Amino acid sequence: MYKPGDVRVEERADPRIELPTDAVIRLSATCVCGSDLWPYRGVQPVTEPSPMGHEYVGVVEAVGGEVTSVRPGQFVVGSFWASDNTCEICRAGYQSACVHRVPMGMFGSQAEYLRVPLADGTLVATPEVPGAGLIPSYLAASDVLGTGWFAADAAQAGPGKTVAVVGDGAVGLLAVLAARQMGAERIIAMSRHADRQKLALEFGATDIVTERGDEGIAKIKELTNGLGAHSVVEAVGTQEAMRQAIRSARPGGHVGFVGVSHDVRLDGMEMFWSLVHLHGGPAPVRRYLPDLMHRIATGAVEPGKVFDLELPLDQAAEGYRAMDERRAIKALLHP
Amino acid sequence: MYKPGDVRVEERADPRIELPTDAVIRLSATCVCGSDLWPYRGVQPVTEPSPMGHEYVGVVEAVGGEVTSVRPGQFVVGSFWASDNTCEICRAGYQSACVHRVPMGMFGSQAEYLRVPLADGTLVATPEVPGAGLIPSYLAASDVLGTGWFAADAAQAGPGKTVAVVGDGAVGLLAVLAARQMGAERIIAMSRHADRQKLALEFGATDIVTERGDEGIAKIKELTNGLGAHSVVEAVGTQEAMRQAIRSARPGGHVGFVGVSHDVRLDGMEMFWSLVHLHGGPAPVRRYLPDLMHRIATGAVEPGKVFDLELPLDQAAEGYRAMDERRAIKALLHP
Repeated sequence: MYKPGDVRVEERADPRIELPTDAVIRLSATCVCGSDLWPYRGVQPVTEPSPMGHEYVGVVEAVGGEVTSVRPGQFVVGSFWASDNTCEICRAGYQSACVHRVPMGMFGSQAEYLRVPLADGTLVATPEVPGAGLIPSYLAASDVLGTGWFAADAAQAGPGKTVAVVGDGAVGLLAVLAARQMGAERIIAMSRHADRQKLALEFGATDIVTERGDEGIAKIKELTNGLGAHSVVEAVGTQEAMRQAIRSARPGGHVGFVGVSHDVRLDGMEMFWSLVHLHGGPAPVRRYLPDLMHRIATGAVEPGKVFDLELPLDQAAEGYRAMDERRAIKALLHP
Repeated sequence: MYKPGDVRVEERADPRIELPTDAVIRLSATCVCGSDLWPYRGVQPVTEPSPMGHEYVGVVEAVGGEVTSVRPGQFVVGSFWASDNTCEICRAGYQSACVHRVPMGMFGSQAEYLRVPLADGTLVATPEVPGAGLIPSYLAASDVLGTGWFAADAAQAGPGKTVAVVGDGAVGLLAVLAARQMGAERIIAMSRHADRQKLALEFGATDIVTERGDEGIAKIKELTNGLGAHSVVEAVGTQEAMRQAIRSARPGGHVGFVGVSHDVRLDGMEMFWSLVHLHGGPAPVRRYLPDLMHRIATGAVEPGKVFDLELPLDQAAEGYRAMDERRAIKALLHP
């Protein structure tokens, strides 16, 4: 990305093993993230041309001398944070805050090859190289599925619970899928786009609410005996969405937020009187990867359905445009 | 309270049973709360002369026709919210957000008699009328102990955990006691007052940190291998205290906040990147009362130690002054 709105595909030097804990992978697929749109739209500054992308699946090409858990030829999925998976924070399940974490976005996974630091703690291999039909779902596990899953988990979705999801992007839709897998009784997707509503229902939503803001909150209350939802997922990252999420939750309820909170300022008195639990942030996808990959391999979930646009990598710019203009939920790129 | 700084003790009509679910109690003791200092200091407006106080223990004088769980002559403790204890929110343990809740502060427990609505859902009786030595501890259970307990619970204090407590008022000190009872491994009290440090150590603190702000945060990090505490209690209610609490917690850690958040505005990005759990608000003291009263009766805890000033009720104004000037941690009033 050269500047907001300006994405180019260029030849760059192939990445190489630099540290004994590195792996280099050949990407099977990559994609554009909703969070890539923040700099694309100029909300986040772009000070110099930067490699883009942090979601990836691929086949291991080479590993450093200290890597023991993956080997060349294996198909692997990794998270958007490289992590050692051994520090105290990782062991507590917060690999996205690993004391040695490395943001994968700095390498740019919208590419043919990618260097992955801390390969043993970051990558998870499948038993065998999967067929092409499963690639989009494994790619989704790398970020949007893992993030939606964390959001639903942070919101304590589960049996007997009513879960409301604010945001109908890929993460929100996959939070619906996660809540369904976690056994939630009722799942309310908040969406006003027909194609996204359809996917939400396919993923397990039981209700669709098209209202937003105060009307959306009133609708959630109406559906929950005036009490509010037990669990609310916030997957947008704006003040309005966060406010809507907190006010849609009942006292003692849980709000899981994963939208990058660019303009959010939470009022202390509102938080205080809401009595909700609030948890979120950059999802520790690595915590969930083995489980998610198993569910994908067995066909229990098909998160790859969020990709409604597939393009060759050299048309990446069109992927950004389509997502920016909301013509696509999420664009998969074939290297 | 007539206006900020102006507290008077006056004759008012005795309260009577007004609803069949009411009880009227004769107060054995009452007290001044840290939150009473907000209007006293003019931070909260005082628009007209208002009865004050919401903490109470006493002997039941009369009950309405529908009251079945307490009877005249019994010694009872209640919370600062009257609650039905049967609605869905109460059953989930959030009695302070009961759908029928009544704030006890509107009646004013700094008095000789008090009407308690929803008596069956609000009051808990002891097996027999306790001796005078236990009265202060039972009175503490009515708010400050229950609030400190909720804060420690919200912060998930427990075995193996390092708990930091921001705020050395009665609630903060009792959060230290709660964390000790919950089995926390290490309890860091943040205080720069010798008398409060002493009580914190008596209640179970293992470390005292006198630094505040960024220095306080650095000290907590230093004591926790650079990671931050697992659990942090915020018992002040200011922007600075909340910021200090969030930054003192490790990623994945829990912040329990019970200070009334008057001037707090939480930055969304800070919350996002902190990866902490945040939970707090008006404590559902009723949830904990039976357990807390049992611990008091058996001598397991002596929370009444937070009262370092005892006055006759007609000197209530001096109780406010002493707390405002920090000459007293908490003032008990004898009706």
